[in-house]
Amino acid sequence: MEQEQLYKLMQSIFPEKRILTDLADRYSYSFDASFGEYLPDIVVQPSNKEEISKVIKLANEYKIPVYPRGSATSLSGGSLAVKGGIVLDMSQYKKKLIIDRENLLAIVSPSVITADIHKQAENVGLFYPSDPSSSHVSTIGGNLLENSSGPKGLKYGTTKEYVIGLEVVTPTGEIIRTGGKTVKNVTGYDLTRLIVGSEGTLGVVTEAILRLIPKPQARKTLLASFNRLIDSGHAITNILSAGILPSAMELMDNACIRAVENYEPSGLPIDAEAIVIIEIDGHMAAIEEEIKKCEEICRLHHAIEIKVATNEKERDSIWKARKMVSPAITQMGPTKISEDATVPRSQIPKMMEKLYEIREKYELNLVVFGHAGDGNLHPNIITDQRNKEEMKRVEDAVSEIFEAAVELGGTLSGEHGIGTLKAPYMEMELGKDGLLMMKKIKEAWDPNDILNPGKIFPQPGQSKVVLS
Amino acid sequence: MEQEQLYKLMQSIFPEKRILTDLADRYSYSFDASFGEYLPDIVVQPSNKEEISKVIKLANEYKIPVYPRGSATSLSGGSLAVKGGIVLDMSQYKKKLIIDRENLLAIVSPSVITADIHKQAENVGLFYPSDPSSSHVSTIGGNLLENSSGPKGLKYGTTKEYVIGLEVVTPTGEIIRTGGKTVKNVTGYDLTRLIVGSEGTLGVVTEAILRLIPKPQARKTLLASFNRLIDSGHAITNILSAGILPSAMELMDNACIRAVENYEPSGLPIDAEAIVIIEIDGHMAAIEEEIKKCEEICRLHHAIEIKVATNEKERDSIWKARKMVSPAITQMGPTKISEDATVPRSQIPKMMEKLYEIREKYELNLVVFGHAGDGNLHPNIITDQRNKEEMKRVEDAVSEIFEAAVELGGTLSGEHGIGTLKAPYMEMELGKDGLLMMKKIKEAWDPNDILNPGKIFPQPGQSKVVLS
Repeated sequence: MEQEQLYKLMQSIFPEKRILTDLADRYSYSFDASFGEYLPDIVVQPSNKEEISKVIKLANEYKIPVYPRGSATSLSGGSLAVKGGIVLDMSQYKKKLIIDRENLLAIVSPSVITADIHKQAENVGLFYPSDPSSSHVSTIGGNLLENSSGPKGLKYGTTKEYVIGLEVVTPTGEIIRTGGKTVKNVTGYDLTRLIVGSEGTLGVVTEAILRLIPKPQARKTLLASFNRLIDSGHAITNILSAGILPSAMELMDNACIRAVENYEPSGLPIDAEAIVIIEIDGHMAAIEEEIKKCEEICRLHHAIEIKVATNEKERDSIWKARKMVSPAITQMGPTKISEDATVPRSQIPKMMEKLYEIREKYELNLVVFGHAGDGNLHPNIITDQRNKEEMKRVEDAVSEIFEAAVELGGTLSGEHGIGTLKAPYMEMELGKDGLLMMKKIKEAWDPNDILNPGKIFPQPGQSKVVLS
Repeated sequence: MEQEQLYKLMQSIFPEKRILTDLADRYSYSFDASFGEYLPDIVVQPSNKEEISKVIKLANEYKIPVYPRGSATSLSGGSLAVKGGIVLDMSQYKKKLIIDRENLLAIVSPSVITADIHKQAENVGLFYPSDPSSSHVSTIGGNLLENSSGPKGLKYGTTKEYVIGLEVVTPTGEIIRTGGKTVKNVTGYDLTRLIVGSEGTLGVVTEAILRLIPKPQARKTLLASFNRLIDSGHAITNILSAGILPSAMELMDNACIRAVENYEPSGLPIDAEAIVIIEIDGHMAAIEEEIKKCEEICRLHHAIEIKVATNEKERDSIWKARKMVSPAITQMGPTKISEDATVPRSQIPKMMEKLYEIREKYELNLVVFGHAGDGNLHPNIITDQRNKEEMKRVEDAVSEIFEAAVELGGTLSGEHGIGTLKAPYMEMELGKDGLLMMKKIKEAWDPNDILNPGKIFPQPGQSKVVLS
């Protein structure tokens, strides 16, 4: 459709200032935190659900793709307008954040920053555990649709476990409610959990009901360094089988440690094969005992150094090592490819071995960190997009990383989503029939393929390319 | 189809001893724990997934309904063969129960009794929290497909929160795997949670991967009696806002207390409007402190009597009061109608008020107990199916109970499922469009309406009848 015609259609719904057509404006909506640039034909900024419903109904009538977009921090291309059309920029959507203390709930609109939910809940002694690294900039709408969860999945489960109700505009423009305000609800199919993690292909979330829990009374943090990676793996497993469920168990490999020390020296042991950060939360008396037990187990498995934070300042300095990883590796090269292959916890040592083999084979700069407690590793390749020859090796390496994860009983993606980047690998994990059952839902709900088309499902003729 | 022809078809799949056609045999498969009797045309007993796949493929070819059946403890008609056809009796399915300690998982086949999973997990210090009252007889396959959860939903979430992977035979007979062995998995749509709670209409589960957690170190139990129901409501809310998350919070109303005392006297205060049983689990030091706090809060809200169990024997005697409810009320009349309308926790006092109004209006014997912590009430009407006049009043009362729950922001069913009994009320809760989105999935997956037809979705011409 001509842009002028599209503009006129949108004018029937939006005031002019909430329709963007200039190239400069559209350009700033052409990328996210992954790869590729795709220029949308037009950008609109809805402020309420009725406007979204109208856009989607018109889009169905005229067969125009619609791409919902939050803060665009997606690492898998979730918000890219790969087929042009309309970008639905949710930034101007009315903000709503109500904490219902009596029912331990938060009622939120999609444009609310996730960190604000944390803050408001904690102000009244409550707790929303999901915490993707991007939570200070990303919005809850995007977090829900990608089901990105962060480090606390082991103890608290993923984002999905905290969403009990949604208001959604469907791919044909109807406004529906799913679930509700009760944790228990078996009235029909669980559309809530179907839509959470659907990467914007099955509906646009316009409101969510989140379950909160009482805020843990206290927390304790420990950092342990190991000469051998395998020892850290044993320590992790043994802590869990001792009946301790840490709120976080983060792993950094040697390349990661060196990168951080290189970026900002803080005395990390640069010869250690692995650093593990363990955090316990809960009742004061319980965590004192449990952190001691963790220390013992790490020592038993040959930890070369153990630091237990005795106050919040020391805790911050431990977490700083982990938080420096991203800036440190970003500095190592212009292009960073961040994967999130996830394996059953017991397979972490084997997966690490495999990752190092791949690093050797393709001579790449690969560092590994991640959420060891739930098997969610983040192998990162630092490269340069302009180096075509190296990029070819990167593609092959990423392909082998996916294969290794699936072979070890794991999954392509623990929390970044499939988007455009991993779509060609879907059948490898799900099988032809498994993928087909997903496609049947998409086709039944979105017969005109209006909502976020080009994502999740492999496109005809699409090869196993990592970078578009 | 003629039974003889059906028999021949099944003979191509099963040995003779696993095909049942005698009227006496079929009769014993004609009911479940709800109402209505529906005679299947034939019963087959698969022992592996390939047999199930073959049955379903043939059923699609010849358009024969297939009704999967576990222990048939459904309270909503989930396993009734309402359109005749084939009952898929899962009792002879090979039993598999593997505890994977390293990954905190249980791998189970659908025919395993849920209580056996509890036992095996606890033997190695692990814990599977879901615990429907029927867990000593019901199988995990049925528990998953109904998403029935029991008293621990408040602290631990529902059954769904513990299922991370499935092997399923689809309504067209394909064998697929969903999810896997990792808590984090965002590879495509969450078919696992779509199938859990789908009441056997979207697939037959042939294997499940359950997430386990470390077994809580200790537990403490308290029973508090209140002269006024409203006080018990305040106590419950205040315990939660004090940052305590009990593993169970069970409520019994006066009619319930009287029924139990009448059945087996144990010194319960028969004038109390409510009894609340609170159980805390976790670290020893934490629970000592928390149970004291619960006691204080109950006292503050005018509890007339508080008992704290000091040992397991005293705990058992507290729980005995709760466990006597079902046998006690069963003795009160030949027919028991057990509902599970669920409301946001803060609405429990209003819902109770409404229930008592309904009891007066229709002059019925109605007792209420339930999982107060998660708003999941179990109003039970004791009646006599043969008394047609009273049954009419029961139907009207049940209809009003559903309306009240939905009006208060709650749901038709917290854990018993929709089955045949609540199907006519689906649109009231979900709206036309919400129900349509569910129907679209069913139609896309099961174009011939083979799997458990007649359930969940209102049937053409079906009125709001509670009893068939």
